[in-house]
Amino acid sequence: MTETPAFDPYAADCPSRQLVDRIADRWAVLVIGVLSEGPARNGELAARVGGISPKMLSQTLRGLERDGLITREAHNTVPPRVEYALTASGASLQPVLMAVEQWARDHAGSVLRAQAAYDG
Amino acid sequence: MTETPAFDPYAADCPSRQLVDRIADRWAVLVIGVLSEGPARNGELAARVGGISPKMLSQTLRGLERDGLITREAHNTVPPRVEYALTASGASLQPVLMAVEQWARDHAGSVLRAQAAYDG
Repeated sequence: MTETPAFDPYAADCPSRQLVDRIADRWAVLVIGVLSEGPARNGELAARVGGISPKMLSQTLRGLERDGLITREAHNTVPPRVEYALTASGASLQPVLMAVEQWARDHAGSVLRAQAAYDG
Repeated sequence: MTETPAFDPYAADCPSRQLVDRIADRWAVLVIGVLSEGPARNGELAARVGGISPKMLSQTLRGLERDGLITREAHNTVPPRVEYALTASGASLQPVLMAVEQWARDHAGSVLRAQAAYDG
């Protein structure tokens, strides 16, 4: 049994706040969504996630790798092939992010109506 | 039965992408977390959400109100009292965001270790 300290994301200096920031990132949500279907290369990710810039994609991938949520594997082919995949820790995030994505799909209509009412 | 169009958050111009952005916001996550315990005033929210600036708090509240996720009620007292509360739509988001928060609490330790290994 490991003792875990009590993490509190409401405290500005708690490490768990960083994790809320990490999940609270549109690009991270969408990249993990794509990788939940299987490993993918940079170009595949760029094609699937509409509107992501090459710079933002590599920044997102580096952050997720640093957090231990994805792996980066370089294959010794010509040309070299680099593939990204979820780690176990990253996979544990998947149901959470799928719930976010599903909520967004389910509520986009009602939110659009609320915005129109607010702006009108 | 209502027909709902197929929303796709992976498409850059889909309204559901906006909703991912909305949920994918650390301040929105934390403010909704506080309001899930009951209505609260501006000052209470500022005290509970460590590190949020007054400007960011009012911007977050305005965005959530515009999206129909919270209500803003001004009470006719001296001094005037303004209270924020979740709508039904906002409450539907609560279990999703609690899952995000719980994941952050559960994984903060392993992510810190992954970051140390990556940086080392």
